[in-house]
Amino acid sequence: MNTFGKIFRLTSFGESHGRGIGGIIDGCPAGLELDIELIQKDLTRRKPGQSKITTQRKEDDRVEFLSGVFEGKTQGTPIAFAIWNKDQHSNDYNDLKDVFRPSHADYTYIKKYGTRDHRGGGRSSARETIARVVAGAIAKQILAQIGVSVNAYVSQVGDIKLGKSYKELDLSKTENIVRCPDDQTAEEMIARIELAGREHDTVGGVVTGVATGVPTGWGEPVFNKLHADIGFAMLGINAVKGFEYGSGFEGTKLSGSVHNDVFIKTEDGVRTKTNNSGGIQGGISNGEDIYFNVAFKPIATLLKEQDTLDRNENNIKINPKGRHDPCVLPRAVPIVEAMAALVLVDHFLLNKLNSI
Amino acid sequence: MNTFGKIFRLTSFGESHGRGIGGIIDGCPAGLELDIELIQKDLTRRKPGQSKITTQRKEDDRVEFLSGVFEGKTQGTPIAFAIWNKDQHSNDYNDLKDVFRPSHADYTYIKKYGTRDHRGGGRSSARETIARVVAGAIAKQILAQIGVSVNAYVSQVGDIKLGKSYKELDLSKTENIVRCPDDQTAEEMIARIELAGREHDTVGGVVTGVATGVPTGWGEPVFNKLHADIGFAMLGINAVKGFEYGSGFEGTKLSGSVHNDVFIKTEDGVRTKTNNSGGIQGGISNGEDIYFNVAFKPIATLLKEQDTLDRNENNIKINPKGRHDPCVLPRAVPIVEAMAALVLVDHFLLNKLNSI
Amino acid sequence: MNTFGKIFRLTSFGESHGRGIGGIIDGCPAGLELDIELIQKDLTRRKPGQSKITTQRKEDDRVEFLSGVFEGKTQGTPIAFAIWNKDQHSNDYNDLKDVFRPSHADYTYIKKYGTRDHRGGGRSSARETIARVVAGAIAKQILAQIGVSVNAYVSQVGDIKLGKSYKELDLSKTENIVRCPDDQTAEEMIARIELAGREHDTVGGVVTGVATGVPTGWGEPVFNKLHADIGFAMLGINAVKGFEYGSGFEGTKLSGSVHNDVFIKTEDGVRTKTNNSGGIQGGISNGEDIYFNVAFKPIATLLKEQDTLDRNENNIKINPKGRHDPCVLPRAVPIVEAMAALVLVDHFLLNKLNSI
Amino acid sequence: MNTFGKIFRLTSFGESHGRGIGGIIDGCPAGLELDIELIQKDLTRRKPGQSKITTQRKEDDRVEFLSGVFEGKTQGTPIAFAIWNKDQHSNDYNDLKDVFRPSHADYTYIKKYGTRDHRGGGRSSARETIARVVAGAIAKQILAQIGVSVNAYVSQVGDIKLGKSYKELDLSKTENIVRCPDDQTAEEMIARIELAGREHDTVGGVVTGVATGVPTGWGEPVFNKLHADIGFAMLGINAVKGFEYGSGFEGTKLSGSVHNDVFIKTEDGVRTKTNNSGGIQGGISNGEDIYFNVAFKPIATLLKEQDTLDRNENNIKINPKGRHDPCVLPRAVPIVEAMAALVLVDHFLLNKLNSI
Repeated sequence: MNTFGKIFRLTSFGESHGRGIGGIIDGCPAGLELDIELIQKDLTRRKPGQSKITTQRKEDDRVEFLSGVFEGKTQGTPIAFAIWNKDQHSNDYNDLKDVFRPSHADYTYIKKYGTRDHRGGGRSSARETIARVVAGAIAKQILAQIGVSVNAYVSQVGDIKLGKSYKELDLSKTENIVRCPDDQTAEEMIARIELAGREHDTVGGVVTGVATGVPTGWGEPVFNKLHADIGFAMLGINAVKGFEYGSGFEGTKLSGSVHNDVFIKTEDGVRTKTNNSGGIQGGISNGEDIYFNVAFKPIATLLKEQDTLDRNENNIKINPKGRHDPCVLPRAVPIVEAMAALVLVDHFLLNKLNSI
Repeated sequence: MNTFGKIFRLTSFGESHGRGIGGIIDGCPAGLELDIELIQKDLTRRKPGQSKITTQRKEDDRVEFLSGVFEGKTQGTPIAFAIWNKDQHSNDYNDLKDVFRPSHADYTYIKKYGTRDHRGGGRSSARETIARVVAGAIAKQILAQIGVSVNAYVSQVGDIKLGKSYKELDLSKTENIVRCPDDQTAEEMIARIELAGREHDTVGGVVTGVATGVPTGWGEPVFNKLHADIGFAMLGINAVKGFEYGSGFEGTKLSGSVHNDVFIKTEDGVRTKTNNSGGIQGGISNGEDIYFNVAFKPIATLLKEQDTLDRNENNIKINPKGRHDPCVLPRAVPIVEAMAALVLVDHFLLNKLNSI
Repeated sequence: MNTFGKIFRLTSFGESHGRGIGGIIDGCPAGLELDIELIQKDLTRRKPGQSKITTQRKEDDRVEFLSGVFEGKTQGTPIAFAIWNKDQHSNDYNDLKDVFRPSHADYTYIKKYGTRDHRGGGRSSARETIARVVAGAIAKQILAQIGVSVNAYVSQVGDIKLGKSYKELDLSKTENIVRCPDDQTAEEMIARIELAGREHDTVGGVVTGVATGVPTGWGEPVFNKLHADIGFAMLGINAVKGFEYGSGFEGTKLSGSVHNDVFIKTEDGVRTKTNNSGGIQGGISNGEDIYFNVAFKPIATLLKEQDTLDRNENNIKINPKGRHDPCVLPRAVPIVEAMAALVLVDHFLLNKLNSI
Repeated sequence: MNTFGKIFRLTSFGESHGRGIGGIIDGCPAGLELDIELIQKDLTRRKPGQSKITTQRKEDDRVEFLSGVFEGKTQGTPIAFAIWNKDQHSNDYNDLKDVFRPSHADYTYIKKYGTRDHRGGGRSSARETIARVVAGAIAKQILAQIGVSVNAYVSQVGDIKLGKSYKELDLSKTENIVRCPDDQTAEEMIARIELAGREHDTVGGVVTGVATGVPTGWGEPVFNKLHADIGFAMLGINAVKGFEYGSGFEGTKLSGSVHNDVFIKTEDGVRTKTNNSGGIQGGISNGEDIYFNVAFKPIATLLKEQDTLDRNENNIKINPKGRHDPCVLPRAVPIVEAMAALVLVDHFLLNKLNSI
């Protein structure tokens, strides 16, 4: 259950304080010239310690390819890769060995497996998402060849909400420290995160994703609707609590006559006048932009005293120290992009199978 | 791509106006005494023509089992079943043969497959969900044996929102015609749907699902988090635009110190004081109730004149006649329950594999 | 575990004396004009009662399509089909209800599932292979469009062995009652089967399969080598005990210098001088003919007295009556072809995924 | 297509002259105390340079675990491992860069992928089987806990055939340099391999596998019959050309009345008098020993001059130098055991899913 995808498949491995994090990508077409720097760039967007509003842990996070790439090109064989762990203050976690931290996976792992690697969250650490970013960055390179691009940005932090749709924004301006493409909102978000940091607390928010250039015909119309696969991908990211696409939850309040997207003829062929469908109709892409929102909860690790239980069910108090993110949103942006790219490249490949 | 589930797998078939709708359930444990009446009961909750606020089409929707059941018991062999189509006014749809109805799957099917069965929406019809209800009703019977129950109800219709959490409601009162367990809200919702009907328009809303009795340990912690699989299941239902569980989108606005669910010791063992986690931590059930919301758009079929294009990209007007639902929500309740039950029974079985 | 194939997937259902046998084909490309008569023809080649050397049970075995085909063409949606059971002398089997017949699946089914449909072997009956023949006949039609054909014939019955390779035979002459394309050997085989019938005994043999026109590049080089998938398909047919391809078991005795297939340049491009590789190198087709042998045991149902145990582990004697095949080989030929065709069409589709 | 197994899944990676060979095992139950020395022992049985009759290449082949094991125990999380490549005389292979070696995968890889890592066979090298041996050695440890053991031995080299069944042999005597448990036959085999080596030629043979202690009920009765899965596993090993189990190809010559295995009552419960079924009836284990034969061709790499073509389709002669095995059989024994163990542990886990 550590494999994602149907054709382009990532199987991931690794724990926060083990030897490293990595994966095997199976099903990547042969002959792709890999741009390692682009992969590294997304890893850098994800890594801790990148700005004043993220954790100050330093992790270099450089990817090493172990197979499947020869003379710079993919070979059609499995692409294994690893990011070796460093800066592991594993002993920092000894106190947490027998503790069930609130809203963490400590309790459920023990109940499920009878054992767990407690160091830094082990397998449940968001450090696991490194493997997704690597695979997603390769997926993006395939998509780029066919004119598809995937971008994400922070559209809400706590109660600070960007009041504009992606169409009103210049997404090339996303790469500030909070990854919100609207300057003024970005400043407010940064202030909100800094406040949370000062209060030794955390804050959640929303990442919005946009895929452009997706041709008509991607998606499988029953269980594997394109948006169901995207939603599944997003809900598998740590801390995600919700997903909506197109008009989403707000659209439920509209009348059908307002909500329907009327087909029109344009110079570019058939288009829709509005796009409440979010680029997907009947589970299949219709050529319009695909857009969606992903809700992230405030992360559970607080640098504050909290009541909880230990493994022997004694009441205890914990007061974690260390270097943690007050807000996961800025670093979640490349993860959202990666997972969306994995879904899209999978459906690009699946869609080759519809005709003889 | 018409198979749902990993161990308990439903493969569905059928079009709205073909021979029938059905499926094969593979992976159902042997020795289960099937209660056919319970299955039929859920089909009846889903069927059209059940009340004044649903479509007046009459479809009897009785299930016939074709294999896998002998002397009333499952045999461990594939369970095939069909619901034969009747009352098929297929010719009613001749006018729609070459039309791209707004926000329907007509356009995307043609683009994907180059062909489509236009009668009543063909495979894209929500009539396909019958197969899910049958399989889900079997899943519920397995879950019942281990003390797990799955219930859903309508919590929003258009802008009419039930202002109570599932904990404040008596879910045994759900089975009124709109399937909202709060009498007063139910009345308002019914009036809202009747208004939409009179206006030849449609209205969307939200279904809330609740699973109780799920033991700790279900769910696979990386890609197949329990909530990711539930979300995937929900997003695969026709007309669904969003999914959230536990504190959901609203929870993104809270501080971590407020959002965290503190572990406490009770007579029933380890519990959490609050349940913003929605019964799932690190992707694994923690023994608390699982609850979630599913957003349904207003359905696209309006009995109103609309602009659109035909297959030759000519501008045309359509003005559909026929018998359609102004609101899909009441009939969606058993579908939400069915899909949730399929996910849960799958994880019940998967969880048997964690130890030697 | 009742699904075969990775892209072109057959999920089968049905018991010998249930409502019928059938399946769902998922992943069949859209737009294929189905030739139903070709499907029916293979069913007729498989059906009982077709000649003096097969069982005299009469089963009409006509396929009904339930979905996925519209106006004669596949729609890209799941193709469900059924062959309804008739001529069910189910009560004939009451005596066998609690008996473990030697070398049958009675004992193992009870041990695995705790229950079984004893009538006519239930799910373990070779009647289940009907679903494979239907799906295989569709696969053959796809393969025909790209110039690939699959043929099988009986090359051994008991100790009567056809002493020629497929290259020395005219495979268009296969359709005599024993399905051996060499007249004289066919007569000897028929006599051998008739002898077995008179002795109320059974006899085994070998079916040889040949696929021509397979282009280079089909097959996945590690676990899913083309011959591994073909072998898996064959070993899943009832009564099969062995599989070999190319030089097979005999080839193990040769020296490498004799066994190696030297590459040569011809008018048709690169070819090999010999074909001990059986058309597959490194698990991937090399453009030469693919050929293989499939060993079938003498079937277990004898019309002779035999010692055995009943369900309560009492020593009993059984002396079955009824209409059974003394030799399964002639009727196995279309099943071998069908399973080979399913594998080949799957790899045809898989091979589309190797490049962007 | 580099994943093997349904529940206990190995995804393998690596090329002969890349960074290393390895894999990820997903689905291994938690809490297993790994005996690393047992794993290393099987790697040593597989490794080159182990005796005078194998290649003299020295490869140390020590496994490093990268994840999934904590404090010596499996965690239920993915177990990644690698065997790093050393002793890579990659430049030795420059001459072969554009050559299609007879009966190798050079030609088919180029045709399939348009590119290949030519060094030492790249992904098509049997060095890839290292990953299988590691995973199989873990599978054996799980099987050992439930009393199942898997053993293989060489039963034929060229035309030298061990004339005894596994029942007449003491399998604890297998570990001589040719891995044949019969002393006299072993000597003849060794002489035969030495002769092949002197002639700069190669020789094939047969490995026999035996699994004891398998309880009744393993195997899925239609496509995934236990022997179909074992056969698939064996046919996926490099150089394998055939598979048979129980009475195999020879059994096709027997009459049913001779071939049938009569059930008898014994102190150990229900058994069969003979075991032509090879421990599997209707695709499901019946508690008797499982035994099977695997045919290996003489390997294609000869230290002799041979005609062939290069990538530009020119006629050329090759005359490879280097260190190669004249016979792959002795080193194939642990690979056969590993693949059988992987199948058996998968069915052990699958069989947990048959009841509620």
